[in-house]
Amino acid sequence: MLNGRMILFIMGLLLVVEGVFMLLSAAVALMYGEYDLPYFLISALICFIIGGVLSASNYKAERNMGKKEGYIIVSMVWVVFSFFGLLPFYLSGAIPSFTDAFFETMSGFTTTGSTILNDIEALPHGILFWRSLIQWLGGMGIIVFSLAILPFLGVGGMQLYVAEVPGPVAEKLSPRIADTAKRLWGIYVIYTVIETLLLWAGGMSLFDAVCHSFTTMATGGYSTKQDSIAFYDSAYIQYVIILFMFVAGINFTLSYSLLHGRVRRVFRDEEFRYYLGFVLVVSLFVAAVLFISGDVTQVERAFRDALFQVVSVITTTGYATADYLVWFPTLSIIMFMLMFIGGSAGSTGGGIKVVRIVLLLKNAYFELKRLIHPNAVIPVRFNSKSVSPTVITNVLAFIVIYMLIVGVSMVIMSFMGYDLDTSIGAVATCIGNIGPGLGEVGPAATFSHIPDSGKWFLSFLMLLGRLEIFTVILLFSPYFWKD
Amino acid sequence: MLNGRMILFIMGLLLVVEGVFMLLSAAVALMYGEYDLPYFLISALICFIIGGVLSASNYKAERNMGKKEGYIIVSMVWVVFSFFGLLPFYLSGAIPSFTDAFFETMSGFTTTGSTILNDIEALPHGILFWRSLIQWLGGMGIIVFSLAILPFLGVGGMQLYVAEVPGPVAEKLSPRIADTAKRLWGIYVIYTVIETLLLWAGGMSLFDAVCHSFTTMATGGYSTKQDSIAFYDSAYIQYVIILFMFVAGINFTLSYSLLHGRVRRVFRDEEFRYYLGFVLVVSLFVAAVLFISGDVTQVERAFRDALFQVVSVITTTGYATADYLVWFPTLSIIMFMLMFIGGSAGSTGGGIKVVRIVLLLKNAYFELKRLIHPNAVIPVRFNSKSVSPTVITNVLAFIVIYMLIVGVSMVIMSFMGYDLDTSIGAVATCIGNIGPGLGEVGPAATFSHIPDSGKWFLSFLMLLGRLEIFTVILLFSPYFWKD
Repeated sequence: MLNGRMILFIMGLLLVVEGVFMLLSAAVALMYGEYDLPYFLISALICFIIGGVLSASNYKAERNMGKKEGYIIVSMVWVVFSFFGLLPFYLSGAIPSFTDAFFETMSGFTTTGSTILNDIEALPHGILFWRSLIQWLGGMGIIVFSLAILPFLGVGGMQLYVAEVPGPVAEKLSPRIADTAKRLWGIYVIYTVIETLLLWAGGMSLFDAVCHSFTTMATGGYSTKQDSIAFYDSAYIQYVIILFMFVAGINFTLSYSLLHGRVRRVFRDEEFRYYLGFVLVVSLFVAAVLFISGDVTQVERAFRDALFQVVSVITTTGYATADYLVWFPTLSIIMFMLMFIGGSAGSTGGGIKVVRIVLLLKNAYFELKRLIHPNAVIPVRFNSKSVSPTVITNVLAFIVIYMLIVGVSMVIMSFMGYDLDTSIGAVATCIGNIGPGLGEVGPAATFSHIPDSGKWFLSFLMLLGRLEIFTVILLFSPYFWKD
Repeated sequence: MLNGRMILFIMGLLLVVEGVFMLLSAAVALMYGEYDLPYFLISALICFIIGGVLSASNYKAERNMGKKEGYIIVSMVWVVFSFFGLLPFYLSGAIPSFTDAFFETMSGFTTTGSTILNDIEALPHGILFWRSLIQWLGGMGIIVFSLAILPFLGVGGMQLYVAEVPGPVAEKLSPRIADTAKRLWGIYVIYTVIETLLLWAGGMSLFDAVCHSFTTMATGGYSTKQDSIAFYDSAYIQYVIILFMFVAGINFTLSYSLLHGRVRRVFRDEEFRYYLGFVLVVSLFVAAVLFISGDVTQVERAFRDALFQVVSVITTTGYATADYLVWFPTLSIIMFMLMFIGGSAGSTGGGIKVVRIVLLLKNAYFELKRLIHPNAVIPVRFNSKSVSPTVITNVLAFIVIYMLIVGVSMVIMSFMGYDLDTSIGAVATCIGNIGPGLGEVGPAATFSHIPDSGKWFLSFLMLLGRLEIFTVILLFSPYFWKD
């Protein structure tokens, strides 16, 4: 029997927490004395009332939770948070369309960063703060999710990390999930504070520095400026953001090692090495093409633009300092392909994840070896341990389902009259939780022109991608509801 | 030690055989009394001399052949045949550019069907006959290749079929490869003759009927008309061609059962059932969109156009009765996705093959079941037998390498200034041995505008696809040359 009352109890509590964060935004609105203040108070009140009623009326629920309850809460929380989180946008009139407000909020909580706003600077500070804050909360939520829920469900890159790579890093972390979660939250907060200070020191206003640090660490990509990071024509600011986007794309348990001075352990981690190497190689290649094609005439600028865009897309942040669609055509194709990689497992980044890509490539490489030596036993190794075939077929299934969803979704988007570029770009960027896509949803455009049905559909894709697909699909499977 | 002399001996013999087929084309040229006759004679003479010298001088080679010799001959024969097969085109001036002549010939032998010709009807009959004949020979070669070489190398769908599905069909075939090959050739010839007669009866000239039957059964797609099958505004002719394209996309050992009246065995075969079902479902969907969108106003016509294009792309034939790029945008996206499916294993069709796609989807589906019941052993089953994990990882490796090559090749094509559509379309259609692509290489266009370097590169992709990738990749691997 599903413990429905327990689910309602927890959802109620979480809603109250969301209300508290709305009050934080209300404080910002109060500070700037802008028109959005009452709307934050009303929104928070709604959260408190509904959340309070839900949790109070189910307070006596039995305190037991199984797998199924875990699945349901995790899937529901993003949806419920988005429906309540859109209230400040919608009630204040900052986003007059309900659909748009939902899209913007889901894009925030899932740390996607695709926006329907065409004049961001016109918004009051409270709204801008809330918009960045929901990404930061989403990013934090993902770490807990991938740490606590995914291994429990037997899916996800983190499960692979924990189960298959019990090596130097994982063993040092506290075995108790709550403790581990607290430590990772600590790292998340520390990184955010450091980035804020560095950006502030670089001439960004404190408000913008906080907002951008929120959305960098979440690999979310919402900016307080319509031109995104291109607004800040400062090499210092852009390099700082590059660094922290990169850091946010690293497994946070590795960051824990790093902060404790265990640098060699970090560099011994295979996923990290592939992630670092891949970013460098692709960035240098893009920089070379940018320079040789004449798109960017200065060497440092070409390197910085290339590095920024590559890190932004691969970590699924989605900030922009340049519009890759106006670059030499090869480069937008490369950016498109990067959308299918994603950050490291256990980071705030979305997408397929580096570890899965590496395992697939390794398996392909070893298959060639096996062809030549058909009788040799050649297992795929990762972090010096052999990977069981079960993990490989799990990764395979993940990628196949991911690609299948991308294919079907392309067809659905094209029904709305979009061409191949726009359809595949919108789908790839939303399911990968990136932000900008191709064609009519490129880095210089927004998602405002997408019809309402398309916005709801893309919001669903963001959720799918954020929950590593399996979680949501299982909810729709009859097997889940049997027994 | 590699038995190089044996390889040269066999290549020499094969060249003589190619010369004999050139004489056949010379007979056609003689019959029509056109200017191309001498060029066929010269080309045949060159084949006889070089082939004769090669085989005579290596006649005393030791008559032993290992795996490596098999790999090398199979990979070489398509290249060597293309270099000699282009002679009639090039010498006669029908295709004045050497690169174009090579592209057209490789596209023929690999049964791709991408063309650089912009005025096909201007060519003499001998040349048109030769152009169709090389596809027919290529198609025949593929059957033998997938039957005799792929299982031997431990790769390919046919190996899967033979090794994993020793059920009702395979067991009835003669265990001796030479016998089996002979029977399959027999079926191939019978089908070609029947189709010729049916097309001839439908009002096509005998010459055109023969040429089109050659290129239908090979799933090649070269036509004697610039407008392809759209030239024949006859429902009868188009349905006959649809039927035979479909048949050519079926495993030829199943066709053997069919011709011996074992119809139920055919319908019991899982790959066939998926192939049939998929073609029907997608065709009906495309027909509905065609009709509802108003692209085609007549129901039968919408059905026929949809069925023709779907079968043409999925079997990798590449004939056209309509330009899917001017259809409602969704449909060109669907056609694009069909390029990644391909015919059945053991057919003349190229691409990834239905069986591989089905295995991947099944594995993904069972993975979801495994998530719910983590302790249950749920193997993937195909044709009522469980499929070993080795086969799944082999299929996985194939798809990963296939997609990796598509990705890198897109980047290479985009360097020549092509946009995403054209780059990915050209690559997908060439490696899948289909014919028409997207963008500037769509069904209404040709490949003539591609720069020479691009034509050589795409020719290489055709070969890669035709040889199911692994064969060629192994030749470039250091492991192959070790020991």
